[in-house]
Amino acid sequence: MAEAATFPAARLHEFCAAVFRRLGVPEADARLAADVLSAADRRGIDSHGVARLRTYVDLLSAGRINPRPQPKVVRESPSTATVDGDNGLGLVVGPRANQIAMDKADRAGTGWVAVRNTNHFGIAGYYVLKAVERGLIGWAMTNSSRGVAPLWGAERMLGTNPIAIGFPAGDEPPIVLDMATSAVAYGKIETFLRKGEAIPFGWAIDRDGHPTTDPRAMLEGGALLPLGSEREHGGHKGYGLALAVDVLSAVLSGANWGPFAPPFAIRQSMPERSVGKGLGHFFGAMRIDAFRDPAEFEAQIDDYVRTLRAAKPAPGTPGPLVPGDPEREAERERERTGIPVLPAVRDDLWEISRLTGVALE
Amino acid sequence: MAEAATFPAARLHEFCAAVFRRLGVPEADARLAADVLSAADRRGIDSHGVARLRTYVDLLSAGRINPRPQPKVVRESPSTATVDGDNGLGLVVGPRANQIAMDKADRAGTGWVAVRNTNHFGIAGYYVLKAVERGLIGWAMTNSSRGVAPLWGAERMLGTNPIAIGFPAGDEPPIVLDMATSAVAYGKIETFLRKGEAIPFGWAIDRDGHPTTDPRAMLEGGALLPLGSEREHGGHKGYGLALAVDVLSAVLSGANWGPFAPPFAIRQSMPERSVGKGLGHFFGAMRIDAFRDPAEFEAQIDDYVRTLRAAKPAPGTPGPLVPGDPEREAERERERTGIPVLPAVRDDLWEISRLTGVALE
Repeated sequence: MAEAATFPAARLHEFCAAVFRRLGVPEADARLAADVLSAADRRGIDSHGVARLRTYVDLLSAGRINPRPQPKVVRESPSTATVDGDNGLGLVVGPRANQIAMDKADRAGTGWVAVRNTNHFGIAGYYVLKAVERGLIGWAMTNSSRGVAPLWGAERMLGTNPIAIGFPAGDEPPIVLDMATSAVAYGKIETFLRKGEAIPFGWAIDRDGHPTTDPRAMLEGGALLPLGSEREHGGHKGYGLALAVDVLSAVLSGANWGPFAPPFAIRQSMPERSVGKGLGHFFGAMRIDAFRDPAEFEAQIDDYVRTLRAAKPAPGTPGPLVPGDPEREAERERERTGIPVLPAVRDDLWEISRLTGVALE
Repeated sequence: MAEAATFPAARLHEFCAAVFRRLGVPEADARLAADVLSAADRRGIDSHGVARLRTYVDLLSAGRINPRPQPKVVRESPSTATVDGDNGLGLVVGPRANQIAMDKADRAGTGWVAVRNTNHFGIAGYYVLKAVERGLIGWAMTNSSRGVAPLWGAERMLGTNPIAIGFPAGDEPPIVLDMATSAVAYGKIETFLRKGEAIPFGWAIDRDGHPTTDPRAMLEGGALLPLGSEREHGGHKGYGLALAVDVLSAVLSGANWGPFAPPFAIRQSMPERSVGKGLGHFFGAMRIDAFRDPAEFEAQIDDYVRTLRAAKPAPGTPGPLVPGDPEREAERERERTGIPVLPAVRDDLWEISRLTGVALE
């Protein structure tokens, strides 16, 4: 096995943008899509950055994603809009819809945008950081292809359906929560399989619905469990959250929900029926001064962050983190060292370079 | 130990309303407060119904809650408001603030109301059901006195900070999620102590921050764990959700947040400092037709509910429930049989009857 490669973030960003352009995506959109992928790489969420470029390339090449979408507002009110993404990249449709939510907030105090006919949008955290940069509270959610069982179900019915919320601070860094509503990410199961290790109880069930510690049993027809795992530890809560994200993202917008959400990878089979258009997202933006003096709010968030950091640590831990800390830590580190890329991903990038004629180095 | 008593729901409602009136609460407010308590009893959430009347009586009698509050909108925008609850019962301030959120939604598409200077508001599910009855998507959250440790913390910093979301359906019952963001409710720990049983790992830590199965070790200076329990199962997610609920309910409104939220029971010590006024709530209401044709939305929710019910059941389970099912089941049962009241609660009710002169039977 070849060693992992490391690339400066700017180099990967440039490569992604050029690849998207080569596949027919207009300049500004290509740059936007690369921004979103790059945010994942810089923040240490390797599963959602360049590691996914191959799949975007496959879907664009196969004509399954529209490279030049014209997203349209199909319904609106002073504080809301529904956007049809014209089957564009979620990495392009998502930022545009999020922008509408922020603009609505400027006028109505808050803005809420449901999006249909779109595709995977990268990390939810990207969108709420955009809101936080404007001094807004940001929300972002999306549904995704099925991989998670509802509590007491023995089959995949829901996606890992993430929720992100960001709160601006004053002198402290912002509070940025970005979480899947499953107990763990799908990628974690693959990692354990590669290492040949058993997964902990509470992460997954096998194809018959029995709890399993065998990563292969989950991957081959089993399912992830929702946050909280089994009933005793609150699995009904993670399940309920995943369902709420799905309804807001997909039912409210007119996208495909639950087990009918379209697959991400090109080789996965299509769902048995269609109940809407594409995937769904949901964005929100709230103006602080629609509720409270922003300086007061930010001072209180600073105080809150410091109070959490001063809490007595549990034995063997560094003490409570503030949501967003691990990603900020990765960002500082990677700015210095570059983005580490696994051999399999590096091979994908070389293959993309060969296919598209875009130079990687 | 005396046997449990059973009361018709209407009888308990009448008793609560009369007790509130006797303690200086105006007629309409007393009835509203009794409505909220009664909703908990009817829906099987025994911890939040008449079982709490004693504490409300204590706090009103001690002058710690204002029986005749004049809640005021202190800031607003087309889709938002901040309400000062004038230190009234949360059971009165909450419904009024929720009403403002719904009225805002009528005009702006959505309505979002943060509330400060309020007190415990009963079950979050009550508020979202009010929205659902009007054909709206409803949201309700509140912070509460500290009982939960942040992940990797060894002390109580957060409340059990519940979130409720309700989605109207067509022919099917609505989807109503109402969940604490802790792994389990505080009351569960007390139940295990009474039964002399060990609690499962993942529910709580002791006063030093070690995981514990001893209910007493949690109750005596320990803390509940957030949804997800430890890091491996996603405890950082439950912690992040509890924090988000706290910021929306208390920081955004100007209430006391985190470890400084005021205690519920009169005998609990006051927090070491004050960072705002009273407790905080957060309500939201979204008009379906601000996003999508309501008939289409409701038909899709019906389809979704049926799809979930048709999922293959996990072995030894009845198959997936839809959020709200257990409460609806309790409601049907209790309409027939009345509300079961534990001996300790029944004794409290008799004591309240004696103190206030309101007849219980």
